[in-house]
Amino acid sequence: MIREPATPIRLGMVGGGKDAFIGGVHRIAARLDGAYELVAGALSSTPEKARASGEALGLPRVYGSWEEMLEAEQALPEDERIEAVSVVTPNHVHHPVAKAFAAAGFHVICDKPLALSSAEADDLAATARDAGVVFGVTYNYTGYPMVRQARAMVRNGELGEIRKVIVEYNQGWLAQKLEEEHVKQAEWRTDPSRSGIAGAIGDIGSHAENLVSTVTGLEIDAICADLTTFVEGRPLDDDGNLLIRFKGGARGVLIASQIEVGEENDLRLRVYGTKAGLSWRQEEPNELIVTSNDEPRKVYTRNGPGLHDDALAAARIPPGHPEAFLEAFANVYGGVAASIRGQDGDHPTVQDGVRGVRFIETTVASARSEAKWTPFPTVPSS
Amino acid sequence: MIREPATPIRLGMVGGGKDAFIGGVHRIAARLDGAYELVAGALSSTPEKARASGEALGLPRVYGSWEEMLEAEQALPEDERIEAVSVVTPNHVHHPVAKAFAAAGFHVICDKPLALSSAEADDLAATARDAGVVFGVTYNYTGYPMVRQARAMVRNGELGEIRKVIVEYNQGWLAQKLEEEHVKQAEWRTDPSRSGIAGAIGDIGSHAENLVSTVTGLEIDAICADLTTFVEGRPLDDDGNLLIRFKGGARGVLIASQIEVGEENDLRLRVYGTKAGLSWRQEEPNELIVTSNDEPRKVYTRNGPGLHDDALAAARIPPGHPEAFLEAFANVYGGVAASIRGQDGDHPTVQDGVRGVRFIETTVASARSEAKWTPFPTVPSS
Amino acid sequence: MIREPATPIRLGMVGGGKDAFIGGVHRIAARLDGAYELVAGALSSTPEKARASGEALGLPRVYGSWEEMLEAEQALPEDERIEAVSVVTPNHVHHPVAKAFAAAGFHVICDKPLALSSAEADDLAATARDAGVVFGVTYNYTGYPMVRQARAMVRNGELGEIRKVIVEYNQGWLAQKLEEEHVKQAEWRTDPSRSGIAGAIGDIGSHAENLVSTVTGLEIDAICADLTTFVEGRPLDDDGNLLIRFKGGARGVLIASQIEVGEENDLRLRVYGTKAGLSWRQEEPNELIVTSNDEPRKVYTRNGPGLHDDALAAARIPPGHPEAFLEAFANVYGGVAASIRGQDGDHPTVQDGVRGVRFIETTVASARSEAKWTPFPTVPSS
Amino acid sequence: MIREPATPIRLGMVGGGKDAFIGGVHRIAARLDGAYELVAGALSSTPEKARASGEALGLPRVYGSWEEMLEAEQALPEDERIEAVSVVTPNHVHHPVAKAFAAAGFHVICDKPLALSSAEADDLAATARDAGVVFGVTYNYTGYPMVRQARAMVRNGELGEIRKVIVEYNQGWLAQKLEEEHVKQAEWRTDPSRSGIAGAIGDIGSHAENLVSTVTGLEIDAICADLTTFVEGRPLDDDGNLLIRFKGGARGVLIASQIEVGEENDLRLRVYGTKAGLSWRQEEPNELIVTSNDEPRKVYTRNGPGLHDDALAAARIPPGHPEAFLEAFANVYGGVAASIRGQDGDHPTVQDGVRGVRFIETTVASARSEAKWTPFPTVPSS
Repeated sequence: MIREPATPIRLGMVGGGKDAFIGGVHRIAARLDGAYELVAGALSSTPEKARASGEALGLPRVYGSWEEMLEAEQALPEDERIEAVSVVTPNHVHHPVAKAFAAAGFHVICDKPLALSSAEADDLAATARDAGVVFGVTYNYTGYPMVRQARAMVRNGELGEIRKVIVEYNQGWLAQKLEEEHVKQAEWRTDPSRSGIAGAIGDIGSHAENLVSTVTGLEIDAICADLTTFVEGRPLDDDGNLLIRFKGGARGVLIASQIEVGEENDLRLRVYGTKAGLSWRQEEPNELIVTSNDEPRKVYTRNGPGLHDDALAAARIPPGHPEAFLEAFANVYGGVAASIRGQDGDHPTVQDGVRGVRFIETTVASARSEAKWTPFPTVPSS
Repeated sequence: MIREPATPIRLGMVGGGKDAFIGGVHRIAARLDGAYELVAGALSSTPEKARASGEALGLPRVYGSWEEMLEAEQALPEDERIEAVSVVTPNHVHHPVAKAFAAAGFHVICDKPLALSSAEADDLAATARDAGVVFGVTYNYTGYPMVRQARAMVRNGELGEIRKVIVEYNQGWLAQKLEEEHVKQAEWRTDPSRSGIAGAIGDIGSHAENLVSTVTGLEIDAICADLTTFVEGRPLDDDGNLLIRFKGGARGVLIASQIEVGEENDLRLRVYGTKAGLSWRQEEPNELIVTSNDEPRKVYTRNGPGLHDDALAAARIPPGHPEAFLEAFANVYGGVAASIRGQDGDHPTVQDGVRGVRFIETTVASARSEAKWTPFPTVPSS
Repeated sequence: MIREPATPIRLGMVGGGKDAFIGGVHRIAARLDGAYELVAGALSSTPEKARASGEALGLPRVYGSWEEMLEAEQALPEDERIEAVSVVTPNHVHHPVAKAFAAAGFHVICDKPLALSSAEADDLAATARDAGVVFGVTYNYTGYPMVRQARAMVRNGELGEIRKVIVEYNQGWLAQKLEEEHVKQAEWRTDPSRSGIAGAIGDIGSHAENLVSTVTGLEIDAICADLTTFVEGRPLDDDGNLLIRFKGGARGVLIASQIEVGEENDLRLRVYGTKAGLSWRQEEPNELIVTSNDEPRKVYTRNGPGLHDDALAAARIPPGHPEAFLEAFANVYGGVAASIRGQDGDHPTVQDGVRGVRFIETTVASARSEAKWTPFPTVPSS
Repeated sequence: MIREPATPIRLGMVGGGKDAFIGGVHRIAARLDGAYELVAGALSSTPEKARASGEALGLPRVYGSWEEMLEAEQALPEDERIEAVSVVTPNHVHHPVAKAFAAAGFHVICDKPLALSSAEADDLAATARDAGVVFGVTYNYTGYPMVRQARAMVRNGELGEIRKVIVEYNQGWLAQKLEEEHVKQAEWRTDPSRSGIAGAIGDIGSHAENLVSTVTGLEIDAICADLTTFVEGRPLDDDGNLLIRFKGGARGVLIASQIEVGEENDLRLRVYGTKAGLSWRQEEPNELIVTSNDEPRKVYTRNGPGLHDDALAAARIPPGHPEAFLEAFANVYGGVAASIRGQDGDHPTVQDGVRGVRFIETTVASARSEAKWTPFPTVPSS
């Protein structure tokens, strides 16, 4: 159903200026349901660009840097200043910004991967906990209604005991060396100083990990990874293939690639239990396919018959009127908004981010190891 | 690409209060790209509900009736009052509201079908012309990027001379008598006093007609229609099947049904020319399939390779990141916004509405006629 | 299941020589399950070609004409001579050949459409009845396992009362004037002296009619047809679109075209009842989709769970091991073989052929009529 | 095109009696195109069942054992005795039978996996070479026309340099312990004494390996395997997931599972090169999808436009008239027949079988190893 609050949450944004594609996506996600009003921004790392970008958007309060924004907003009366900040910078800036705003009592929405290291990630989790703020991480694909249906079915035991998980994130756009063709999105993603220790595995493999964790609740026991750099001279992996062992005995395969030429944004998940299996594809997100050995294949549709409440709550319009990427992203923003209002919002948290960074670190460690299996470390609970 | 204007257009809304599903859709469409700010509303036909609905949305100016709103807004300074009004009432209210606001110099966005009769429709067209206002009609499906790609390909001659058109709008939700089960959407749609002379043909057949006209530019020469009411006691058709002859010799089939049980919102179009054919489905809107006798089938994807500028302009995010119904709806709103700002906005106009009403009238006349082939009347140009 | 008889039926063939594509298809269909052994043939209308074709196939008994074959086979001992004849000539030869062999006590398998006129067709039906022979007509698409599943579900009431039928047969290969490019298949199909009074409607529309009749059992009450010849100078229709009224109130649309460029062999059927709908496509024949307003869409698969006995009986190999056109064709041959052995074989009969010719005649009459709705004549029962 | 030889090859069969599903499949494959005539058989391991099965099929010469058949056939005049033998027994019988017949100068068609060990496999290759007989192995999936199109495109450089291969063979039928429910197909496949050292990897993983090798020509450098037995008490793997490194730097993932509940026979292949990628699925075998970063996705169809000669040669009927599993199987038989007639037949050979056994052995060794990568041994050339 469409939910339209009378009073939106006042939001600030760090990063996401001109040419930063993902900033516009976050703004649409924040705006789509009227849940947020963007009132302040430090939208770039250079003061001029930050100001120009903010003015182009007609923001009420435009800042030259996040430090300036933090100081100025804190100085405003409580009912005027931003309530939450959205951090949409390249990865290496996540930690300082998110930490500073959380420590100052602002709720935080941060892009993924959460940080460059698990030390940074744990620090953010501790800061958020100590400050008592809501901290959402935009693993946006978990906002899809049919992902929530998948989660509900698995958690509800409808698949039986989970045996096998196949998750893939197939892209092809980095098959050529776009980072040398002034494509900004390619530049920072292939630069370890801004992106961290991983390329495809950090950028999209982390979405795949989160999708599996969200839907199944399975915990990874060990990883066996093969990471490759196919484009010559690129310092980070652009293709990764993992065997996974989960606690309890389930097995998994994870594929994340950015050199599978012609693939657009093919995130897909298959989960097989003792009773039934399910399959979902991000590029056709309004359907969830459920299979078994005893019945015809079933195709559940968004807002259609047979759905769990979680899935229904995430859909706005009737079946056959497709909702897609931006609506799913808005669902994550909506979940954080609900948490900010004191409800039990449905969104990935800083704990997802903490686990996600460990996933990247373990995968990279495994890829460098001669041993077949690299154990997954224990994730500190918040 | 994502376009985010610094200054949104001030919008008022008539209709679309609580329980009126389509109001929320229009508001998301207006808000999604930041192109409009909803500042006033008379959201229901009863003053109490109108006020309650407006307050629940936190609207700056809440009115009890559209007449009250019209008067009050006219009294405001020019840089405060609404610039445009969105009319999202049941069909029978379109004409009086749209006429009054247009005559008063407000731009109008009106839901389809435009009016209950061609006399009403022509009157709206004349009023808009005389007042010099922008008048958009929310044939929202034409906002899909791949519909615009289809239009560009046909208009560009890539299909050769058009021979055959098959357009379908398959729904099943009215297979049962929901109008007796307090389903508001079913109630007014099956009530001639609010919906007009046609049921399925008016509600969804009119979208199909507009889609064909938009994509192909073909003009209907004559219609041979079979309209049926399957649900006992329903005063309007719930299933319609048409043979169509277009000027120039092309042939067509149009199917519009609301009793095809299990079908959700299956609007689909196929167009075949002497050189190539194309196929598009609203439920998988990010793809356009192009066929020929000489080459492998091609699947164009939204924002992917090989698209015309019109199609690229209507897409916000990269290929594989699906956009859907609400984004297409927002594209229509965006087109009207562009026209209001003096650009050549891409959106259905009052002329589409005028022709659409004639389509309904001609179809109903054919269905009642023994002669079957009923000529399509000349549509007065604006 | 795979059925392999110890003793095949001795088969003769008329027509189907070199260059006659369909002859090879019939021979594979006859041979695939070991149900027939082809022992004699008069494979062409010219004695030299007939003999050359028969020898190239290594047939035990090669004849120069069907008259010669008929005489010679009758002269053989009963346990040597052919038991059945397959008539795979152009349409105008069906009647004389099938009549002569049936009258002589040979079982007949005849291609569709059965004959050039209902007089001829009725004569064949009467001849077969009087001679007491089995007479199968190769409406081959009814041999698909999932068509038989559809038939069982409709007949079993699982769809409720049938309201709407949409059947299409979309092809594009005759969009160009292939009959002037020495394409034999195009030559006779567009020649009224060999093909009869109809082009696309006779060649493929007749399959569509038979599919509807087989699956639903509905009887046509009246037809409103628009037939068109798009390719200049072609004497027969190459595109046909029909509105259909069935006895009992169901409505239908039938589309048959050979100018829909890029379409290959897209026969598809949708049937909607009060309870459920079904959809089947010949190009993906191993699936049957069932929809309703109350449950997720179900996809039944050939030899998979939930099938009726009729459908299971028509499948040879496990689900996921696809069977296709030739296997469906072989199922029709297998049904005739069962009837010849005295069982209740599942195959289209001469009655289907009789009704099919009336379908063609009524459609052509409607297309030529101003009145449009043309009543479907009563079909004499055999 | 349909090829129908005047004189079929005389074939004998070992194994494939009543209840042995695959025997019937081989017989259809041999018979479909008229390329073989089955004239002799020792269809079971027990003389009574062997004779009963042979008589039920009406075989001219029925034997109680393969030894008896070998001796008797050798004693027949050269123009009467069988020319080739088809070995369709459980795996452990492949070697003795195939060796004996090959050594005696009979051509051999043998099911896969070729043998229980590479020693046995090498021995068969040497025997076939020394005897100068044709030796085909029924990796039947390589017989699909669109697999041959894929092979031609890769070999022709249309994909550029190959970087990544993903091959999957997803089944679910062994998710339950069918071997305890008297399902013969499950019994021998899960019994090491009849099936060999591997379960799913041997039964279906071997098809996946062969498909990759056939299409790409890539040689495996090393394997990292995770094999699992999910069904308690089953002595062989029922799920396998592999990382693969190919010589030259390409990377691969291979998934073979028989516990993915609801999956039928989902063999699928994706290959990505520097220029383009391709995707093929056995369950929809008439299409081959080709992707690139520069052009719309292309869907090649069997016998449709744009195909290479190899692919056209493997298709019998026009595009849109689907061919499937049995036709692909018949193509392998047809390839062996061509080789027997001295032509350059297109079919998997004993060398494919030799490499396939090494694939199984290396995979099992890797699964048992703590080391990440197990090198693939050099395959002796024949």
